[in-house]
Amino acid sequence: MCTALALCASNTCLFGRNLDLDAGFGQQVVVTPRKFSFEFRGGLVNADHEALIGMATVINGYPLYAEATNESGLSAAGLNFPGNAVYHPRKEGATNVAPFEFIPYVLTQCQNLAQVRELLGSLSVLDEPFAPQVPNSPLHWMIADKSGALVVESMADGLHWFENPLQVLTNNPPFDFHLENVKLYLNVSPSWPGNSFAPDVDLAPVGVGFGGRGLPGDSSPASRFVKAAFERSATLALSDQVSVSQFFRILESVAMVKGDTLNQAGQPEFTVYSSCCDTSDGTYYYTTYGNHQITAVRLPEDLEVDSLFEFPLVEGEQFNFVN
Amino acid sequence: MCTALALCASNTCLFGRNLDLDAGFGQQVVVTPRKFSFEFRGGLVNADHEALIGMATVINGYPLYAEATNESGLSAAGLNFPGNAVYHPRKEGATNVAPFEFIPYVLTQCQNLAQVRELLGSLSVLDEPFAPQVPNSPLHWMIADKSGALVVESMADGLHWFENPLQVLTNNPPFDFHLENVKLYLNVSPSWPGNSFAPDVDLAPVGVGFGGRGLPGDSSPASRFVKAAFERSATLALSDQVSVSQFFRILESVAMVKGDTLNQAGQPEFTVYSSCCDTSDGTYYYTTYGNHQITAVRLPEDLEVDSLFEFPLVEGEQFNFVN
Amino acid sequence: MCTALALCASNTCLFGRNLDLDAGFGQQVVVTPRKFSFEFRGGLVNADHEALIGMATVINGYPLYAEATNESGLSAAGLNFPGNAVYHPRKEGATNVAPFEFIPYVLTQCQNLAQVRELLGSLSVLDEPFAPQVPNSPLHWMIADKSGALVVESMADGLHWFENPLQVLTNNPPFDFHLENVKLYLNVSPSWPGNSFAPDVDLAPVGVGFGGRGLPGDSSPASRFVKAAFERSATLALSDQVSVSQFFRILESVAMVKGDTLNQAGQPEFTVYSSCCDTSDGTYYYTTYGNHQITAVRLPEDLEVDSLFEFPLVEGEQFNFVN
Amino acid sequence: MCTALALCASNTCLFGRNLDLDAGFGQQVVVTPRKFSFEFRGGLVNADHEALIGMATVINGYPLYAEATNESGLSAAGLNFPGNAVYHPRKEGATNVAPFEFIPYVLTQCQNLAQVRELLGSLSVLDEPFAPQVPNSPLHWMIADKSGALVVESMADGLHWFENPLQVLTNNPPFDFHLENVKLYLNVSPSWPGNSFAPDVDLAPVGVGFGGRGLPGDSSPASRFVKAAFERSATLALSDQVSVSQFFRILESVAMVKGDTLNQAGQPEFTVYSSCCDTSDGTYYYTTYGNHQITAVRLPEDLEVDSLFEFPLVEGEQFNFVN
Repeated sequence: MCTALALCASNTCLFGRNLDLDAGFGQQVVVTPRKFSFEFRGGLVNADHEALIGMATVINGYPLYAEATNESGLSAAGLNFPGNAVYHPRKEGATNVAPFEFIPYVLTQCQNLAQVRELLGSLSVLDEPFAPQVPNSPLHWMIADKSGALVVESMADGLHWFENPLQVLTNNPPFDFHLENVKLYLNVSPSWPGNSFAPDVDLAPVGVGFGGRGLPGDSSPASRFVKAAFERSATLALSDQVSVSQFFRILESVAMVKGDTLNQAGQPEFTVYSSCCDTSDGTYYYTTYGNHQITAVRLPEDLEVDSLFEFPLVEGEQFNFVN
Repeated sequence: MCTALALCASNTCLFGRNLDLDAGFGQQVVVTPRKFSFEFRGGLVNADHEALIGMATVINGYPLYAEATNESGLSAAGLNFPGNAVYHPRKEGATNVAPFEFIPYVLTQCQNLAQVRELLGSLSVLDEPFAPQVPNSPLHWMIADKSGALVVESMADGLHWFENPLQVLTNNPPFDFHLENVKLYLNVSPSWPGNSFAPDVDLAPVGVGFGGRGLPGDSSPASRFVKAAFERSATLALSDQVSVSQFFRILESVAMVKGDTLNQAGQPEFTVYSSCCDTSDGTYYYTTYGNHQITAVRLPEDLEVDSLFEFPLVEGEQFNFVN
Repeated sequence: MCTALALCASNTCLFGRNLDLDAGFGQQVVVTPRKFSFEFRGGLVNADHEALIGMATVINGYPLYAEATNESGLSAAGLNFPGNAVYHPRKEGATNVAPFEFIPYVLTQCQNLAQVRELLGSLSVLDEPFAPQVPNSPLHWMIADKSGALVVESMADGLHWFENPLQVLTNNPPFDFHLENVKLYLNVSPSWPGNSFAPDVDLAPVGVGFGGRGLPGDSSPASRFVKAAFERSATLALSDQVSVSQFFRILESVAMVKGDTLNQAGQPEFTVYSSCCDTSDGTYYYTTYGNHQITAVRLPEDLEVDSLFEFPLVEGEQFNFVN
Repeated sequence: MCTALALCASNTCLFGRNLDLDAGFGQQVVVTPRKFSFEFRGGLVNADHEALIGMATVINGYPLYAEATNESGLSAAGLNFPGNAVYHPRKEGATNVAPFEFIPYVLTQCQNLAQVRELLGSLSVLDEPFAPQVPNSPLHWMIADKSGALVVESMADGLHWFENPLQVLTNNPPFDFHLENVKLYLNVSPSWPGNSFAPDVDLAPVGVGFGGRGLPGDSSPASRFVKAAFERSATLALSDQVSVSQFFRILESVAMVKGDTLNQAGQPEFTVYSSCCDTSDGTYYYTTYGNHQITAVRLPEDLEVDSLFEFPLVEGEQFNFVN
């Protein structure tokens, strides 16, 4: 389970996510340079494209991205969507893209959301695994640039995509549920409330935070969506607060702490990593569950090459002892 | 478990309650006339007092009131307070009143809250049962007249009493908890809300009731207190809606429906009866769980007598077949 | 805004609803006899059908039903669905049914849900008003018999219908939202809870109702849906409690009390009436906001006629003064 | 507003807090060595005591601690308690301790909770400021060692103290409210829930976190208390997860993010710093709002001195650029 977030202001444009699972999956920061040859399942071969940076597992030299950003600042993240994600047989006349190649396909073919919207008009998500022993995850995707965000869901009845003004995404149910669900929290506010509860009685808050009462604090996908959307808007209301540091603070407010969320097998899910890409220069920042310090990976200078750059994660706690 | 409510406007002054249990207790509407002789455990004998009307079990000719109102419009109700109610040994210099006689004592000695406040200054709740085989219930009380309401709690460290501007009472925890707890709902409103959740995004309610989001809907004492206080204030905000009929609508909003609330023994608790006394003329209205029609009992004309008037409950559903 | 409910057990099968508005609409109990001639907009004329009983406004001799039941026990209710209900131009090859005739059409053409499912395969909701000055309301419908319940929604992309195992319906958003939303309350229970919150600390409930914590208590459509579904299942868990009286208790738990819910114009919405039809014999029971007593209308003996039977509502409080 | 937390397991014993304000207050990590001379307002002078480490503002060479730990592992934190904290005139026969010296007094006089309990029997919190221009903050305190935690509240009617098995503290209302309030969340769980909501209908979670539904997500003191207590117990249920890193993850789950909580003046409150002291060796770990990396300060080797050690905060984000 995961939470994705896009956050842009005049000074900066950020994209990232929490990845919540009960274990890591061999992920590392991976830069795909411009000459890396993508042989897409729909037939397209592309060895001259924008570079990508993001978190991926590399198998047989191929970057299986969880999320990535390209040089134009277009970003995409895949989030778990079990039970609702349905992939389809090869469809004539459509652009058939397998789930594992959805992120590189979109980020190498498009530079902005306008191009993505056009692409989505003919796209079908192809039910082909990366390899026989590497089945596809059930996913939906958030794609964002500085102009906004989209959500893409491949379901039993075909491809759905939506404009996403809230610029957050979590997991089940499908996105249209979340878009209705947030409306159930319209009376929640960051502000010190008046007394609309019992105006005939003298009652006042005895501390801060009373305007936010009603916000959910559990880690279900619906609740994380609500909380993250609230935090995002609250940050935007402070004109000068959009920053990498603040981005991680928002992600932490919807992170899973070991023990608070057990999956059906009784295992703790936790926020394996959190990421934030500064889409203006492609610098990728991350923390891991076990390391609070923000680690940063810059785009290498020479991107005109064909081999992946891999940056193993710094996972142990990096304390700064001052004495 | 129970909910008591006082509701006064310029046109009328009402007092009543839900009584929630897993069974009835032999209750009926009982009028105690003016010459009925009360021999209180503190030593006072009073056979010339205001008449009382309310719901009571009569044992050995004595009215064990759950709630009652006197001719001056002063009312009192006892509500379950297990684990917190503590009654005390006879205390020298104090007015010692046993729990089972608390309601008749207060309603025969006082005509208004000012007199009640004075009485409470010296009152101690005496740990004596009505009879060996009739143990005291653990109770706290709400007392009200047209000027306001009080709550009285006899606990391990003595007698506590509070002004109660919310004019509702339920059960555990003690009253001061509830007075703080309602403040956690200050941002709840009967009104159509704006969008303070995410002002940067275009979101609006898709129906009524969105301002009330956050109100609890369970039957725990804390939640019933919050809901009843909200409903009471919402009624008062409509200048012309205070009526016996509306009073029952408020009580129904916090009633227990058979099945929704099981006690520790697994038995359903339900709203055995709901009551509303029009304190201006002493007419006592009630419904039972099984009978929606409001039954009414008026004060008898001749109250200068010494024997109780008992009115067995109309408990079966009184359908009005129009054809 | 409204709440519909179907509740069947071995002994009885009930169907009804709350109708929540800021005013009445000239409604009364109306029986349509078997020979009443329906001239449906799709072309069908039917003057030999099962009789119907329900709440309707009669205009120009035509019964505009809010909800009704036929002699086979099939029932249907229309509920407000603003912004989502879209009706369509006449469609060739389809069964075109106008919204105002949806209930009589279904209840005169079908005797059970199996037949309704078949009908829905070819049905299109026709965008034609009853009369120029009587615009269609935006509605969706719940249809039920003793075997289950369906929801029917005519939206921009055509007709949707769903099996509805929860057998309740309220208003916006569309039904599939509510079906996901109830899952967010799976940990709520009528029972006395253990302590899964902090098992290392000794904590226990101090009263009943703690298992129900988390249930919403506001009057938004989503919250009424959740509460009504919970109450319905809680009743069914008590094997012997399904009755007309209990049905009204469930409806009261989600009723709007004057003042607690203001619409966008600032006017109070309230539960104008509540109804419960005993579908086994067609007896129609109702209460109004101002009258707690349950009024009942039986099917007239001679139904082989062609003129409507109209039963004006008993709307004033019918107190039962016992002295 | 703040959140304090104690968390001990067989392997380690940790104490710390979030400090939430709208600005810093000149705080830094301060070690008070053993020979530092405390001249307490009650008359006691102590220049031979255990060393203290914690966060403090130093004024005129005096450490005004927000929280601290002594060499025996006894810790104390002061948290905002406005409107309820009342300090008292000098009281004969009592141990009079001013609020600003409460932490050093307790931590230099006591080595464990048993000694603290004894001290509290005669303690009175003295209404004297540190200096005319440095008024006392309204505070209550949590004190903990490896055996448990206490809460101390000086109110209008004198000193109250409580055993605190939940080992968290936030702000208003007084502690006994929070101890009752957590019971309203007993049905919340980290686990995958069954369906107690509507057992007659086939419903299941569509992701993790559904057992936690009902947990509050706002930043009011009551909600932070509930959330922190839940997270603490959830960590303890995982036998091997108590660590400094995990401690900060818990604190982050109740941290205030800039923008989500505005105080009455409309200014954002935020988690100025978070701290965690490893009480076994006195190492003090902290993060600041603007710096995710955990900074650590060890107890200096030579503590047999009389002058404070001051460690200015590392407040800027310490990114680890790996390329």
